Amino acid sequence: MSEPFSFRLIACDTGARRGEIATPHGPVATPAFMAVGTQATVKGLAPEAVRASGADIVLANTYHLMLRPGAERIAALGGLHAFMNWPHAILTDSGGFQVMSLSKLRKVEDKGVTFRSHVDGAMVELTPERAIEVQGLLGADIAMQLDECLQLPAAPGELERAMRLSLAWAERSKRAFAGAPEGRALFGIVQGGDDAGFRRESARALTGIGFDGYAIGGLAVGEPQAVMLRIIEEVAPVLPADRPRYLMGVGTPEDLIEAVKRGIDMFDCVLPTRNGRHGLAFTRFGPINLKNARHAADPRPLDEESACPEARAYSRAYLHHLVRTNEMLGAILLSSVNLAYYQELMAGMRAAISAGKFAEYGAAAREGWACGDVAAL
Amino acid sequence: MSEPFSFRLIACDTGARRGEIATPHGPVATPAFMAVGTQATVKGLAPEAVRASGADIVLANTYHLMLRPGAERIAALGGLHAFMNWPHAILTDSGGFQVMSLSKLRKVEDKGVTFRSHVDGAMVELTPERAIEVQGLLGADIAMQLDECLQLPAAPGELERAMRLSLAWAERSKRAFAGAPEGRALFGIVQGGDDAGFRRESARALTGIGFDGYAIGGLAVGEPQAVMLRIIEEVAPVLPADRPRYLMGVGTPEDLIEAVKRGIDMFDCVLPTRNGRHGLAFTRFGPINLKNARHAADPRPLDEESACPEARAYSRAYLHHLVRTNEMLGAILLSSVNLAYYQELMAGMRAAISAGKFAEYGAAAREGWACGDVAAL
Repeated sequence: MSEPFSFRLIACDTGARRGEIATPHGPVATPAFMAVGTQATVKGLAPEAVRASGADIVLANTYHLMLRPGAERIAALGGLHAFMNWPHAILTDSGGFQVMSLSKLRKVEDKGVTFRSHVDGAMVELTPERAIEVQGLLGADIAMQLDECLQLPAAPGELERAMRLSLAWAERSKRAFAGAPEGRALFGIVQGGDDAGFRRESARALTGIGFDGYAIGGLAVGEPQAVMLRIIEEVAPVLPADRPRYLMGVGTPEDLIEAVKRGIDMFDCVLPTRNGRHGLAFTRFGPINLKNARHAADPRPLDEESACPEARAYSRAYLHHLVRTNEMLGAILLSSVNLAYYQELMAGMRAAISAGKFAEYGAAAREGWACGDVAAL
Repeated sequence: MSEPFSFRLIACDTGARRGEIATPHGPVATPAFMAVGTQATVKGLAPEAVRASGADIVLANTYHLMLRPGAERIAALGGLHAFMNWPHAILTDSGGFQVMSLSKLRKVEDKGVTFRSHVDGAMVELTPERAIEVQGLLGADIAMQLDECLQLPAAPGELERAMRLSLAWAERSKRAFAGAPEGRALFGIVQGGDDAGFRRESARALTGIGFDGYAIGGLAVGEPQAVMLRIIEEVAPVLPADRPRYLMGVGTPEDLIEAVKRGIDMFDCVLPTRNGRHGLAFTRFGPINLKNARHAADPRPLDEESACPEARAYSRAYLHHLVRTNEMLGAILLSSVNLAYYQELMAGMRAAISAGKFAEYGAAAREGWACGDVAAL
C-alpha cells in the first residue's frame, strides 16, 4: 500500500495512449473512467458492485464531504477509503466546481472562495490551502488544486481573470501539498474557457509549476462538443507526455472515444449513474430508454452478449416495469449496467491501443450505436 | 422442478414446530420468514441479495401485479419466477388485503370486490375465481384464497359477515383451483377479527373444505400484541397439525418468536425492508436507529459477529452518513442487514426446536434486545 504515485505509458496509437497509474491503493489502467461517488457512495451501488463493473478508481466530491460529514470526521474514522469501504484508488476534486454550481451565495476573492453551505446555511471558506488540507484528511490518492470554473459562454475578460486566479491558486496548492504523505499525487487544472490562447498559457504555466498530472477543467459546461474537442487539441500537446491527462466531468461514450483519440487518459462523469436512475441504459446498441412503452412486453435482455450479469439476466420488460413503478432495483440495475458499459468501453479502447487498432475500435463502436437497438418482433 | 407440494414436520418443542415445505421451486425450511416483493422486487435488493440473506421464499402482491404490469403480461413473459429472476419459491397473496387498504373506492359484494385502480383509475373486478386465475398466471407456488380483511376494532356483526363471506369465497377458491398445475398449493385464510368464537368457526369450516395450508389473516391490523397472540392460541389447535400455518403480515422479531411458540410456521412482513429504508436496523441488540446523532462518529460496525457481511463491513458512522444524506446505499445496506437478521432469527429458532431448546433460544434473544445497544466510548 506504499506504492508511490507514478504513470507509465504502455502503448500509443496515433494520439491515443494506453498506460497505468500506480497509486498507494493499487493500479489504475488508463484510459480510465472514474465512477462518481459524490457523498462517499456511488449512488445505488455497494463498493463490491462498483469494483465488479471494472473500476480501478472512483471520484469523491470534496465540497459535499467537507460539509457532511466533515473532513476531520472522516479522517478520525480512518480516511475515506475505510469510511466508504473502497480499498482501491480515490481521486477527490477540490470542491471548487460544486461551490460554483451548488452554492447560491458565494464570493470569489484572491485568497479563496467564501460560500453558504447548501446543507445548513453556514458560511464556509475554501482556500487553495484548505482544499489541500481537506483532501489530505480524506486521504485521497489523487488531489486536485482549487480552481475557478466558469460556465460557458463567458466574456474573455472573465475567462482570463479566472484562468489567472486558478494559476495563482495552483502555485499555492503545490506549496500546501509539499508535506503530503509519500505516494499521494496532486493534479493542476488547465482553465481558460473556450479561448485557445488562454488555455495554452494556462497549460504552459502549470507545467512550469510542475504537477503529477494535469486536468482540463471548465469543459462540458454547456459548450458544443466541437468546442470541447478543439480545446483538447490545443491543450494536450502543451502538457508533458509523461503525466496523466484528465478531462473533468466528461462525458458521453462518444465524448470518451473522441477525447482518448486526442490524448486524454482519465475521465469522470455522473452520466452512467444519473441516467441509470432515470431509466436510460447505455449499451453497444446506443442508449435505450426503458421508460418507453415498446419495452413493456419485450422478453429480451438488454444485451445477451454483455459481460455484465445485469445486462443478461433481466428482461427489458422487467426493467421497464421497475422503471415505471419507480422501484429502487431499476436504478440499481441500470446503474450497474451503465458503469459496466463505460468500463467495457475503456477496456476496449485500451486493448485497441495496444493492438494499434484504435481507429477501427472507435469506428466499430460508433457503427453499433448508429445501427441502434432492434425492436422486438 | 416438479416436486409436488408437501409439508413434513421435522421436530416439535412444546408448541413450536420445525418443518420443511416442498414446492416446485425448492424447499422452504420452517418456521419461515418471507421477504415481501410487492411489485415483483424486494425493495432495494437484487434477487441474489435476497437469497444471500437466507430466504427460501418471497411473497409477491397480486393486487399490485394484476394492475401493473398485468398478470397476462407476466404469464406471457414466462411467469413471475422468470420475470423477477427468482428461481426459488413464491407465495402470492390474493389481492384482497390491498384492495381494502389501497383502493379509495371499492364495493364488496357476494360475487367479489370491485375497486378503483390506484394506478390508472380504472374500475377492476376481483372475484375469488379471478384471484385464483391471476395467481395461476403469475405461477405462484402457493396461492391464497380471496378474503375480506377488516381493520380492528370492528363491530361483531361486521366481523361475522366478513368471516362468512371469506368462507364462501374459500369454497369458490378451492373449486377454481381444481385445475391448477401439479405441485401448486392453495391456502385458506381464517378470519373473524378478535372474536375467538368466529375464529374457531372459520378455522373448522376451512379445515372441512380442505386446503394445503392455512393462514391466519386479519391480525396485525391495529390490535395489541396480546390480542393477536390470544387469537393464535385459539386458532392453531383447531388447524390440522400436518399442514403449514401462516400468520399474515407479522411482524416484529418478538412477534415472530411468540407466534412460533404458538405453532405458526410462516410469516411475511414489510418491516425489515421498510424500516431499513427509514434508517432502522434490526440487530441482536434490538433495533438501532441510525439517524440518531450518537452514531455520527462511531467507527464500530452494527454487529461484528453477524454472519451478514453488510453488518460487519460498514461503520455506524458511515451508515449514519448514508441515512442522513438520503443515499440509496443506506436503504440497500440496512434492508440487507434487516432481512439477514430476520432469517438468522428463523434459522436460530429452527435449530433450537430441533435441540429442544426453543424456550432458551427465545429467552436469550429477548435478553439481547433488552440489554440494548452499548454506546461507543
